Amino acid sequence: MTQNPSLSPAPFTFDVQACDGRARAGVFHTPHGDILTPVFAPVGTQATVKAVTPAQLHELGVNLILSNTYHLYLRPGDERIAALGGLHRFMNWSKPILTDSGGFQVFSLTGIRKIDEDGVNFKSHIDGSMHRFTPEKSMAVQENLGADIIMAFDECALPHDREYSQQAMVRTHAWAERCLRAKSHPTQALFGIVQGGVFLDLRKQSAEFIASLGFPGHAIGGLSVGESKIEMHAVLELVDGILPESKPRYLMGVGTPEDLIHGVLRGIDMFDCVLPTRLARHNAALTRAMGRLNLVNAAYAEDPTPIDDTCACYTCQHYSRAYLRHLIIAKEMLAATLLSIHNIHTLVQLARDMRQAIIEERFDAFTAENFRKREQEG
Amino acid sequence: MTQNPSLSPAPFTFDVQACDGRARAGVFHTPHGDILTPVFAPVGTQATVKAVTPAQLHELGVNLILSNTYHLYLRPGDERIAALGGLHRFMNWSKPILTDSGGFQVFSLTGIRKIDEDGVNFKSHIDGSMHRFTPEKSMAVQENLGADIIMAFDECALPHDREYSQQAMVRTHAWAERCLRAKSHPTQALFGIVQGGVFLDLRKQSAEFIASLGFPGHAIGGLSVGESKIEMHAVLELVDGILPESKPRYLMGVGTPEDLIHGVLRGIDMFDCVLPTRLARHNAALTRAMGRLNLVNAAYAEDPTPIDDTCACYTCQHYSRAYLRHLIIAKEMLAATLLSIHNIHTLVQLARDMRQAIIEERFDAFTAENFRKREQEG
Repeated sequence: MTQNPSLSPAPFTFDVQACDGRARAGVFHTPHGDILTPVFAPVGTQATVKAVTPAQLHELGVNLILSNTYHLYLRPGDERIAALGGLHRFMNWSKPILTDSGGFQVFSLTGIRKIDEDGVNFKSHIDGSMHRFTPEKSMAVQENLGADIIMAFDECALPHDREYSQQAMVRTHAWAERCLRAKSHPTQALFGIVQGGVFLDLRKQSAEFIASLGFPGHAIGGLSVGESKIEMHAVLELVDGILPESKPRYLMGVGTPEDLIHGVLRGIDMFDCVLPTRLARHNAALTRAMGRLNLVNAAYAEDPTPIDDTCACYTCQHYSRAYLRHLIIAKEMLAATLLSIHNIHTLVQLARDMRQAIIEERFDAFTAENFRKREQEG
Repeated sequence: MTQNPSLSPAPFTFDVQACDGRARAGVFHTPHGDILTPVFAPVGTQATVKAVTPAQLHELGVNLILSNTYHLYLRPGDERIAALGGLHRFMNWSKPILTDSGGFQVFSLTGIRKIDEDGVNFKSHIDGSMHRFTPEKSMAVQENLGADIIMAFDECALPHDREYSQQAMVRTHAWAERCLRAKSHPTQALFGIVQGGVFLDLRKQSAEFIASLGFPGHAIGGLSVGESKIEMHAVLELVDGILPESKPRYLMGVGTPEDLIHGVLRGIDMFDCVLPTRLARHNAALTRAMGRLNLVNAAYAEDPTPIDDTCACYTCQHYSRAYLRHLIIAKEMLAATLLSIHNIHTLVQLARDMRQAIIEERFDAFTAENFRKREQEG
C-alpha cells in the first residue's frame, strides 16, 4: 500500500463540465488546486499583482495569476527564486500560477536583439546587459520559477506582415518541439502556442501542428496586438475547430469584458491581461455595462455613488466616486489599490457569471444581455 | 420609557482600569467605539492611511486613526466631506477618528503667514492660495469633518526660543478658551493642548491653565520637534503631576517604540505618528528589538527569513526579506503596503503589550526587558 491515497484527480486533466454552443465550462486540475473555467488571470509581472496583496486576490476569488518569465529572470533572477523555494512561496500565492515563456517580452520590450534558428539575443531593459533565450533556456527558467502552467518559447510577429508571420510560425513550431523535449518537471504543464498572425492559412497550419504535439493545453498567441476585432474573431473561430476539445484553450493577453465574452463564445477557456491593474494606475474603472470611467473627471468630485452600483466588490461596497477622485487628485496609493480591486473583480466576476450561464444553458441570452447593455450605455 | 435603552457608557468618559507606577491602562468611550489605552494611532493625513486599506487596519487591530484638518480643509474641502456624510463615511472608517486642529501644519508646512491674536493667515502648499484659520474656523472645519476627538487650535513654537514659546503659549491659552466657546457638537470631544516648549515654568503654567478649563482630554504639544529626550521626559514628568488623572493624556506626533514606552512610563495614554507609514515608504522596517532595518540593503537579497521572526503580522507571517527587497528594487507599490502593515503592527502591538503588562502589574519588568533587548541588538 505505497500508493498515494489522495482521491484528487490527476494534475493537468481537463474536464469539460458543460457546453452551450461553442462555449464551455470546465475544470483544469493543477497541483495547486482546480481552475474553474472560463477563468480570467490577473498579471503579476514582477511576482506581485500591482497594488494588491495576495489576501485581497483570494478575497476577489482569483484562482490563477500570470507572472512574467522575462522580468523574473532579469530581476530578482530565477535561480534566486528557486533557492527561496519557488515562485509560489516567494510571492505567497498558494493557488495556481502560469508563467509565460519570455518570448513576447523579448520581442516587445528589449532593444537590440538577434534572432536565429536556435534562439534570441536581447538586451535587458533594466541595465542594458546582454542575454540569450533559447527554448531550452526558457524551460530551465520556468522550471526554476515552478509555476503550474508554463508556456512554450514562441516568436510573436507583427500581425500583418505575412512573410515574417510565416517565418515566426515556423520557428515557433520548431521551438515547441524543443520545449517538449527539454521540459522535465512532472508538476508543471507545458502549453503549446499557436501563431500565424491574421493569416488564416498560417493559423490553420499552426493549430494543426501544435495540436499534433500532445500538449495538455493550447494557447493562441499573437492576438490583441494591433489586428481588428473581425480578424481576431476569425482566427478564434478557425482554431476552435482544430484544437482538441479535451484540452483547455488560452487566449493570451486578452482583455476587455467584450473580448472575454467574444472569446468564450468561440471556445476559449482562459484569459490573462494587465488591463485591469494598468487601467487602475491610470485612474480608470472598468465596468461591464458602462465601459470605462475616468475617475479624475471633475464631474465625480461630489458624487456619493460607487463606481458601479450593481457591483459587489469591496471598493463599490464602501467607497464613493468622490472619495476615489480625492485619492487620485491627492496622489494617494490607495487609489490604485481600490481601482485594481474593482477592475479585477469586474473581469473575475464576468468569468464566473459566464461559467454559470453556460452551466445553465443560457449563454446566448447572457451575451445578448451584456452586449445590449453596453450599446445602451455606450 | 422614552429613555435610550443602551447600556453603553456615556461618550467621552475615561475609565482608568489599572495603574502600575505612573503607567495607566484605561478605556475612553466614544460614539464610534471604545479606545483601549495605551493606544497608538496611525495617521491618515489625506483621509487615508497611506498604502493600506481600512480592512487591513481593522485586521491590525487599529482602533483610532488621526487625520489632518489642514490637508482636508484644502483638499477635498471640509464642506464637501460634510456633504458626503462626514469623514468616517468618506474614508470608510467606522471606528474612532481624531482630527488635529490644523495649527501644526499651518506653522510647519505653509510659506508666507501672518499671526495675530485673532488667528493665522497662510498660503496653501498646494496652489499658493491664501487662507485664514482662527480658533472658531478650526472648530467649524473639525465639526464638518466629524471626528470623535477634535483638537483646540494651538500655536507650536520652536522648542528652544523662550520668548516665542511664551508668546505662543499665551495665544494657545486664549485660543483654547475660544475653541471651547465655539465648539457645538455633543458627539465630539474637544481636547486642550499644553504648550511651552522645553521651559518647565512655562509648561507648568500651561498645564495648570489648560487643566482648569475642563476639557475631557489633554494633549501635550510641541514635543518631538527637535528637543532632546531628556528635555522631553522632563516635560512629561512635570505635566503628569498636573493634568487630572481622570482624563486621557495624549502625546502628539510621537513616535518610536522607545518614545511610546517612555511616554507610558510617564502617564501618557495616547500617541500618534506618521513614522510607521513614512518609514515604510522609505523601505525601512521598524522593530521592537532590532531597531530599523533598511530592506534595500543588498545583504537581504537572498535572505529567506521574515523582517522579525517574533512578529505575528501578515507581512512577517508570509514574506521573506528577500521578497520585500525585490519589491523595493522593482519599485512595486506592494513594498509600501507590506512594510506599512508591519510597522503599524509593531507600534499597535507594543501598545497592546504595554496595556497587558500594566494590567498584570509587571510594567517595570516589561520596560526593562524591552530596553535591554534594544541595547543588546543595537
